[in-house]
Order: sequence, then C-alpha cells, then structure tokens
Amino acid sequence: MEMIMRSYPNDWVSKSIMYAKGVGGGSTGVTHHLTEAVQGTYHYTIGPYSEPVLHIQPGDRVVVETQDAFEGKIKNETDVPSDILEMPWLNPQCGPIMIEGAEKGDVLAVHIEKMVPRGAQPRGTCCMIKEFGALTGTYYTATLNDPLPEKVRKVHVDEENVYWSDRVTLPYRPHIGTLSCSPQIDSINSLTPDNHGGNMDLPDMGPGTITYLPVRAPGGRLFIGDAHACQGDGEVCGVAVEYPTTTTITVDLIKKWPIEWPRLEADDFIMAIGSTRPLEDATRIAYRELVRWMVAEYNYELWDAYMMLSQCGKVRLGNFVDPKYTIGAAIPKKYL
Amino acid sequence: MEMIMRSYPNDWVSKSIMYAKGVGGGSTGVTHHLTEAVQGTYHYTIGPYSEPVLHIQPGDRVVVETQDAFEGKIKNETDVPSDILEMPWLNPQCGPIMIEGAEKGDVLAVHIEKMVPRGAQPRGTCCMIKEFGALTGTYYTATLNDPLPEKVRKVHVDEENVYWSDRVTLPYRPHIGTLSCSPQIDSINSLTPDNHGGNMDLPDMGPGTITYLPVRAPGGRLFIGDAHACQGDGEVCGVAVEYPTTTTITVDLIKKWPIEWPRLEADDFIMAIGSTRPLEDATRIAYRELVRWMVAEYNYELWDAYMMLSQCGKVRLGNFVDPKYTIGAAIPKKYL
Amino acid sequence: MEMIMRSYPNDWVSKSIMYAKGVGGGSTGVTHHLTEAVQGTYHYTIGPYSEPVLHIQPGDRVVVETQDAFEGKIKNETDVPSDILEMPWLNPQCGPIMIEGAEKGDVLAVHIEKMVPRGAQPRGTCCMIKEFGALTGTYYTATLNDPLPEKVRKVHVDEENVYWSDRVTLPYRPHIGTLSCSPQIDSINSLTPDNHGGNMDLPDMGPGTITYLPVRAPGGRLFIGDAHACQGDGEVCGVAVEYPTTTTITVDLIKKWPIEWPRLEADDFIMAIGSTRPLEDATRIAYRELVRWMVAEYNYELWDAYMMLSQCGKVRLGNFVDPKYTIGAAIPKKYL
Amino acid sequence: MEMIMRSYPNDWVSKSIMYAKGVGGGSTGVTHHLTEAVQGTYHYTIGPYSEPVLHIQPGDRVVVETQDAFEGKIKNETDVPSDILEMPWLNPQCGPIMIEGAEKGDVLAVHIEKMVPRGAQPRGTCCMIKEFGALTGTYYTATLNDPLPEKVRKVHVDEENVYWSDRVTLPYRPHIGTLSCSPQIDSINSLTPDNHGGNMDLPDMGPGTITYLPVRAPGGRLFIGDAHACQGDGEVCGVAVEYPTTTTITVDLIKKWPIEWPRLEADDFIMAIGSTRPLEDATRIAYRELVRWMVAEYNYELWDAYMMLSQCGKVRLGNFVDPKYTIGAAIPKKYL
Repeated sequence: MEMIMRSYPNDWVSKSIMYAKGVGGGSTGVTHHLTEAVQGTYHYTIGPYSEPVLHIQPGDRVVVETQDAFEGKIKNETDVPSDILEMPWLNPQCGPIMIEGAEKGDVLAVHIEKMVPRGAQPRGTCCMIKEFGALTGTYYTATLNDPLPEKVRKVHVDEENVYWSDRVTLPYRPHIGTLSCSPQIDSINSLTPDNHGGNMDLPDMGPGTITYLPVRAPGGRLFIGDAHACQGDGEVCGVAVEYPTTTTITVDLIKKWPIEWPRLEADDFIMAIGSTRPLEDATRIAYRELVRWMVAEYNYELWDAYMMLSQCGKVRLGNFVDPKYTIGAAIPKKYL
Repeated sequence: MEMIMRSYPNDWVSKSIMYAKGVGGGSTGVTHHLTEAVQGTYHYTIGPYSEPVLHIQPGDRVVVETQDAFEGKIKNETDVPSDILEMPWLNPQCGPIMIEGAEKGDVLAVHIEKMVPRGAQPRGTCCMIKEFGALTGTYYTATLNDPLPEKVRKVHVDEENVYWSDRVTLPYRPHIGTLSCSPQIDSINSLTPDNHGGNMDLPDMGPGTITYLPVRAPGGRLFIGDAHACQGDGEVCGVAVEYPTTTTITVDLIKKWPIEWPRLEADDFIMAIGSTRPLEDATRIAYRELVRWMVAEYNYELWDAYMMLSQCGKVRLGNFVDPKYTIGAAIPKKYL
Repeated sequence: MEMIMRSYPNDWVSKSIMYAKGVGGGSTGVTHHLTEAVQGTYHYTIGPYSEPVLHIQPGDRVVVETQDAFEGKIKNETDVPSDILEMPWLNPQCGPIMIEGAEKGDVLAVHIEKMVPRGAQPRGTCCMIKEFGALTGTYYTATLNDPLPEKVRKVHVDEENVYWSDRVTLPYRPHIGTLSCSPQIDSINSLTPDNHGGNMDLPDMGPGTITYLPVRAPGGRLFIGDAHACQGDGEVCGVAVEYPTTTTITVDLIKKWPIEWPRLEADDFIMAIGSTRPLEDATRIAYRELVRWMVAEYNYELWDAYMMLSQCGKVRLGNFVDPKYTIGAAIPKKYL
Repeated sequence: MEMIMRSYPNDWVSKSIMYAKGVGGGSTGVTHHLTEAVQGTYHYTIGPYSEPVLHIQPGDRVVVETQDAFEGKIKNETDVPSDILEMPWLNPQCGPIMIEGAEKGDVLAVHIEKMVPRGAQPRGTCCMIKEFGALTGTYYTATLNDPLPEKVRKVHVDEENVYWSDRVTLPYRPHIGTLSCSPQIDSINSLTPDNHGGNMDLPDMGPGTITYLPVRAPGGRLFIGDAHACQGDGEVCGVAVEYPTTTTITVDLIKKWPIEWPRLEADDFIMAIGSTRPLEDATRIAYRELVRWMVAEYNYELWDAYMMLSQCGKVRLGNFVDPKYTIGAAIPKKYL
C-alpha cells in the first residue's frame, strides 16, 4: 500500500486515449479564461437547464477560477458552519462549458494540466458539518444521536504542502472533487455523484490525469469545481482541504464511445468509476465497467478479465459521504 | 495510486509495537513445525471447541504448512468446482495454536516472516464458483439470474512471479487470507471475517507485516490458512491465486491491550480492520478504530484525528465476497 | 399479518390533518380537469424547470387522466420491452400543478378520492424489464450474469378485480406510484424516490388516504402519475399492474409545516416515508421522522416514542427496485 | 395496512404442511417439560457443541420455561443496562432439544401452541442499550456520536394486554424472537439470525403458527428463547417487551425437504424468511425463497411466480438491529 498519494506527470498524454481518439487530436487549441467575472453566478445543480458560460472547440484549453466548496464563506476557525452554509447552496460549480459537436453517445475527455492555489492565506478550509461525514448519523443514515460538534480548520496551502498542524505537514496533492457532464433530463445537485460524474471526490483526479465523461446532453455541458489541496481515501469527515484554484484543463471530444460511467486514465493505469449506495454496489459498478472495458478495447476474454482483476485490480475509495459513494477500480496499463 | 502491491521488509520489526509491548520481547524463541502431519485434520470453523495442535510460548516461531483454500482438490482446468467442493468444507485452517498466558483482553501479535510456495506445479489455483464472487448474484445477494459459468485456472507460482497467462505475469505478492483468534463462544466458518479476524483477504497481510488479533478465549487459539500468491483489491471473482505454502510466523503476546478489531502494522503505516456488511459499515468500523487508536496511543485529539484522516487516510478493500466484506483503514507512521 | 391490502374509506377526512390545518379548510373548491389534451406532453423529470399545466387554489379538486408507466406503448404479450421502451422516457407524469400561495417550508396535502380505470381491455400491464427488478442484477447492483428474460403480461382490470390469470384473481387496490412536489433546484427522473416524493410505490397511497409533501419550490409544483391497479410489497419484479386512470384528488396547502420527508395519513394510522439506499437507511429515515412527528405534534417524550414504536410500529416496503428504495413507518392513531 | 398484529388460531393445523408431511403425523405425542431446573445452564450460542437437555420423538410436545432476554437481571427502571448486562451473555436459549431421526437435509416443524406469561409483575422489560438499536450508531454502524441514553421500562403484562404507559395499552401479541436449529459446524451467538433461524424477531412467529427450520446437524438441535409480549416491525429500539414465559410447542420432523432458509406457515399465508445485511439482501433472500417454494411445491411457473408476487407479496420486517436483519416475504394461501 502506497501511503502517500503520488503526483502524476503530464508527459504521457501523447499516448493517451484522448490523444488517439479525440476530435481535437489531443493537441491544445485556443485558451479560454473562465474567471470568476466570466462565470458570474455559480451553479449548485448539474443539468441541461442552465445558461452556458463558455463555448469551446474540442482540444481547447480552459483556465478556470474555481471557488472553494463553501464559496469562501468560511473565513475563521471560530465560524460555525451551520450558521453560514445553507443547503443546497454548497459546492459551487463553474460552467456549463459547451463543447462544439458533443452529442449523446460521445465522451468528453478532460485533461487536468495544472492546479494552482488562489487567494489569501490561510486559503485551505476543512470543517465538520452537522450530520455530514462518514462517522456520524446523517440525513440518510438517520439516527437519534446528538450531532458531532462543528469545527473549522483554516490551513495554509502552497504548491508544495498543506500545513495541517504544527505536527503534520502533508504534501500538496491537488485534485478536482466534482467534474461532470450534464445528465440528459435530470439536474443533480453538486453534492451527489452518479453516472454523470458529479461529486466523486477521487484523489486520483488531479493534474496529469484525464477523465472521460459520457455526454448525454447537447454540447456535453461540462461543470467543474470543488478543488482539494489533498484528501484521504473516503474524505471521511466529509470535507477535504477545500481551496480556491486556478485550474488549467484541456477538453477534447471523443465521438461515439458508448460508456455508461466516468473513466480515468493516468500514465500507468486506467480506472472505471461507479457511484451509488450501498458502497458494495458502487464497487460492483466500477469493476463491471472495468471488465467490460478490458473486453471491448483490450482484447480480453470476459472471464479471463474477471478472474485476472481478482489478482491485480486496485480500488480507490472516493466520496464516502452522503448522499452517494464513489469507487474507482483500476488496472495497471502494463497488463493491458 | 500505487498500481503494484509492494513487498514489505522485515528489518523494521525491532521498532514495532510487538517488539515494544510483547511478552516475548519481539525476539524469536523456539521454532515449532506445524506440518501437515502434525496438523492432521484441518478446521473449517474458528472457535473455542476444537482440539489444540500446538502449545507455544510468546515469542516462539512456528513454521506452518498451509493447504490451499480447496485443500488441493482442484487439480485440473477441466475440473468443475461444484462437483468437487462441498460447503462448509472450504478454506482449511491450521491450528488452533495455544499461546501460553493469553487471556481475554490480551492481543496476539503475528509477525509473518516468510511465505514459500509448496507442492508441484502448477500449484496456484483460481476458479469461478457458482453463485460466489462480487459480480454475480449469490447466496446472500439472491437473484434469479442463471449463475456464471464455472471456470478453473491452474497457474505456475514461484518466489518471483505468478505466471497468470501467456500475456500477463504478475509479481509474487504472498499474503495470508485468513488469520484468526477464536471468538469467545461463537465458532465461525473460515469463509467469514469479523472482529476475530477470519477471512479478511487483505493483500497487505504478507511477509514483513504484523497482525494484531484480540484474544477472547484462553490461549488465544490462533488459526491460519488461505495463502494467496497474489490478489487484487476485493478479490473480485471470489478467488485469489490460492496455493499451498510453508509459512513462517513469530507469535507474541501483548497483555491487556483492549482492541476490538484486528490491526496491522508495517514498516511505514498502521491499519485498523473492519469486517461486516454493507461495505460502508466495514469502512466505518475501520476508520473509527483508527481514530480511536490515534487518540489512545498517539496523543491525537479526537476531532483532529478525524479531520486529519479526511486528508491522509488510506483504504484497502480486502474481502469483497460473501458473506462479509473487509476494509483496512491506514495512516502513514510519519504522521503519528 | 394482514394478507390482502384493504381499501380505505374517505369519510374520515373531516378529522384529518389536512382538514384541520389546510388553507382550503379541507373543503372542496373548484374542480379542474387535467385531461390528456390539457396535459399535452408528459414529464419524466420532477423539478422546477418545466412549464405548469394548471394553476389551482388550495382546496381545489383535480380530475387527472394518468397514463400507465409505459405511456400505453406495451400493447401485447409478444412485445419486447427493450425494443419499445427508451430510458429515461419512462413513467410519464402529469403536472406540474401550481398551488396558489405554496412556498418553501409549506406542505401540499393530496387527498386521493377516487381512481377509475380508463382505456380498452386488457388495460393492465406487467412486465419484466432487462436488468430491472429486485431479484436480478441491475444497473446499480451490477453483475455479469445474463439478464432475466423479458416478459409481458396484459391483464384485465375493473373496479372490482385484477384478473391476473386463470388461477388467480386479485382485488382491485388502486394507488398512485409516483407523487411529488418539486425539489428546490434539482430535477429528478420519475423513477427515483427521495425527499420530494417521487416513485415511492407505496400500496397505501390509494383512495381514502392523504399524502403530505414538503414544498421546496414556488407553487409546490405537484406531479402525479404511475397508477397501479394493485401491487405487492416491494413491487418485486419492478413492475406492478400498470394502468391508465381517471384519478380524482383534492389538493390543499398547509402553511409552515416543517417536514423533511413525505408523510401519509389514513383513517386509522399515520406514516412517515423514507427513500434511499441501502434499505436500512430508508427504514431509519422513516422511523426517525415518525419519532420526530410524535414528539413534535403528539406530545410524546422522545425516548418514550422510540421505545414504544419498538412495540407497535408498522413498516411497509414500497419501491424496492433501482434506483432507490422506499419504506413507510406507521403507527395506529389510537395510540396518539 | 393492518395496524394491529392479529393473533392466529390453532385450528387450521390439521391442514398444515407439518400435518401432511411430518413423521409424527402432526398429532401430539408425549409431553415433555423443559423447566428452568431441567434446562440448568442456558445457552448463548447456537451450534453443535453443547450438551442436549432433552431427547424427543417427532410429534412430541414440549412445555418450555423461557427466560427473558436479560435472564431476569433487569429488575427496576433505575437499573443501567450496561452495568448489568455483559456481552455475549445475552438472550439465553433453552435447548438443545434432540429430535429422534433428524438428519441434515430434513426440516424441523415447530408449532407454537401457547405462550403464557410467567413471574411476578412487572414482568415485561424494555430498555435502550448503549450503541444498540436501529436509530443509533452501533458496533457495526460505527459512528463517533455520543451514545443514546440508557433507559429501562418495566411493564405489566398479562394474557390480554401489555400495559405500556398510562396513555397506551397494547394488545398481548406473544411470539418467539429466537428459534433455531444448529448450524452444521458453526456456533452462532443468540443475537444473530441467519439461515439456521436465530434471532429473527418476527412478530408473526407466535401461537397458531408453524416454523420450519432446516436441519444441518444430527438431531436438529432445537433452541428456543427470547419471548416477546408484543413487538413492532423492526423492533426499532433494539428491544421488545421481553418477558419470561411458559411456552408450549409441538415439534415434528419432515424428512428430506431441501430448504435453505427458515419458513413460516399460518392459517392463511406462507412465508419465507431471509436474514443478512444490508436489508435489501435479506429481502432478496426471502422473496427468492418464496418464488422457489411456489415453483417447487405449488406448480407455479418461475416467471409467473415472480411477476405475481410483484402484485400480491407481503413483507414483514423482523430484526432490524445489529448484527443482521430479518425479512419475511409472504403470500396468501388463497393464491396457491
């Protein structure tokens, strides 16, 4: 078990699926700037009903100014989250970004190139929110126990480290918590992951990786937000080190790739992602998608793929907090 | 995400909890040989009602001849598991080994030193068993679908590699699938993990690591079996590369360490282990035990531990097959 | 265990919560006709983004022409559902109906007065849909098993009986499968139940009962559809006896009743309803809401309510099919 | 929804499966008295390793003196359960009773004839136990919340009523909470239900009903205990109205009836019982067993049975507390 999440390089991208199959040829086109000003109002639900903020071509680069998950409202360690936060206005999303030519049945490829912290220190925020988190009764795992106390931690973050406490400094391992294409007719709050992506909270989804999202609405309607400076598996208290970023992505379009759930590619592995409850069903989805991927595109016989993953599959726990849980199932590329 | 399970060194053991707290002082005493002949009949249930096969002192070393999970009955790829295997006579366990002085409230420390393959090639066995595995309806996740086909794979295994197929060679990453102290009054079949240990199927539980098991019956009653030459997270088809071994362990005794669930220590991390269904509850157990461990023994404040694990906790999926699932939650020692 | 679902009278309504607290005074006002022609296009997602089809006053009556869950497309027993049905165009909903004065924090009371079958015989439809149902691998409980066969049953339905087969005639026990207020910002497909109502599939939700739905969007935005001529607990194959109806409801408005989840009232019991996965969490929600209801409005001490429900609470399994499950927890009025 | 659990008659038993297939011919043979004195030590684990207390012939009657689930230790409302109760010494069981001729593959039929309260008033006990119950974090649903308070209720019970409070009197609806045959090699604590029966806590399992338990160990080894004077669906706080009884049962033996899970028969329905976690899997087991029962013994075609249960199946929630949950799925006999 690797104990520290590693960072991923970008230099393998010319060997990626995106590069091979993308309409944009994997090469970077025009650069767009989705600043706070351009974004204007953030979105808290991911669907086909919101006004686009940007129209791009496959292969274009977008530099996005993401807000932290609390929209910067939690400023001090004496703040009480329940006084400040109001459901469902949590986890603000940038977008929707329309990708020219994207139609149902296609896939958006989102290469995260770089994530740079923004804003004044301490720019990182962690907190404990009432009836939210994995080790407490919640809205859905309803108990009669008194809630846990509310706590706020403000944390210095730079491109090297997350300065958690006098005692512990954690490496900077940035990633995007919430990345989505629009569902076809649903509009889903930004706290929930499902087959459109959403709040997956996978620490692998950082610079140097490419996420593939199934397109279900015209233009794809890409949403992005919820940057984490680091996060443990499961984000167990419900909150990572949330922070505002300038995130650079390249977005490409793969035509007619019939995938049902998001997928992720890094230099040395591919991963299928499932999100639902209970957690075993999220895991089943992820592993079934991975089996199917191996069969469809890597010339594996079905039962050989299944039995071999029993020997070398790797699982990452992402979101493990209400309202749905996320699992990534991966295999090293060397075996493909 | 580390894509290949690494192997663990043994040279850190003098800094282990076992070494610091064990009655045997971590040093190795007498060496016992629990051969097939000494064992005689294997056990398929872990409890206080079976006859001990060995009595040892804390700190003694035991060299155990483990059988594979099918007791060597699956010999050819044309075999049909359901013709050969009969529930509940699966997953044969060596033991029980009685440890002098072990009482309820104590802990057995089991340092796995070495696992050497035994028997003629192809000595590794994987198979698909009817209504068993993670991606199929099962005895407990009862469906009306036709079962998956039964399949057998016989695999060459040596101390370097697992020769899975012409296409794929996997590194030899041996570990013990089933390791247990006896429950107090229950006797639990060897397919089921719970707070006594049991069929945890954690790939981390290999040479170079120490597992801590809560003692609930006099003498502890250690059972061991179910060696895997390698295994992916979740052992998704229900079977790893099962094989017979000569496994060398040192067993020590820690008096009055009130732990509820098994724990694992390696050179660079500590891990708490939970086993139940649904999978979120196994994860909750593991993370709660880890939080409590940090608070009790590493001078962490409760909510600091909880929030910090949200940033740096690591999760391993072990057993993900009927009848119960296993999760390990870990933290790097460098943060303790 | 009562083996046949009984039918409920309407004559108790003057003693209902709706009658006591409703703005419309429980009395019936104007009658509106929401015919197929008035409805025009049906809806497959429940949210704040669709055009209203009707504006009514609290206390008004609406006579609604509901379609069956397949919009009448399954006509013969030789039809193959997967050839005919296309996700997400399933479970067509009438509405949204706007209720004058309804605001976030209020509650809509929907009294179902009468459900009369419509259309030519055999007007009832049951079927088995690929990877849908409780005893099969599904989209979320993902397995590699072959799907169950697709089957269609066309069934005669009148106001007395459901003529299931030569062997079995079932009593006509009509109810509304899907009843909803709009979420605040989400729009949720009509197959999914949650705290807005949705596809709860509770056989209790029939003529003679009143359902209370929390208002989260202006006007409440009531949606109704998915009539069942009868249904067993859990709707285990995924489909009830689906049929088109003329359904008469009275809709009233209760101001400032802070409920989180739907509730149901009949002549002799009150019920709180929870919907999520896993099923234990749906049950927890329902029971917690019922405890809270007893404490807030029936002068029960918290722990007395909890312990007493342990002696006299009743549970109904509603929707037990993807993507979320529904439980109603009830207590006889005689104990309140 | 029937709001009050009804009581069942005994006069239908001559038409029961037990009567038709039992070795004892359903007729009552010798009467044995399993008094407290005969029992001596009670059992807290159900398995093949304990000493029999009684040997009977198929068709014999046994009058059993059951203890309450706390062995009478909770005497006053000021008692604190955690001071008095010690795991795993909870839920004392009478037995094992050996039935002549019972072998693996057979079934024990247990007709509960009568349950009469014993002991001084207030003889009923309900309580809230630390980290036990459905609406609290528990040992398996591990949270960091403070536990609920511990509470004790002592309740008068007679053959008419349970006198819950000044405000509420509940009807006496006695049933057996824990009824078991021994597993083959496991020994399972008396708090856990599974395919051997165990702590099912089904309110239907009262006088006038017959429970069928699969025999897996020689003699069947019947255990019985955990009488409830009444209980709501799910026993939500974890404890019913526990009380000591004199319970009269007739035990018969059905040879070679290959059932996997317990079943229950009453005058007007048959029920299959499943126990596991999560709750959806318990429900799946129960419904699959019921489908298989209809196909094997009532001449139903498989898919007809499945689709018909979707219209008329009934579900009872039994045990809904750690460590496993129980569901009964039933169908009226009139449809068989």
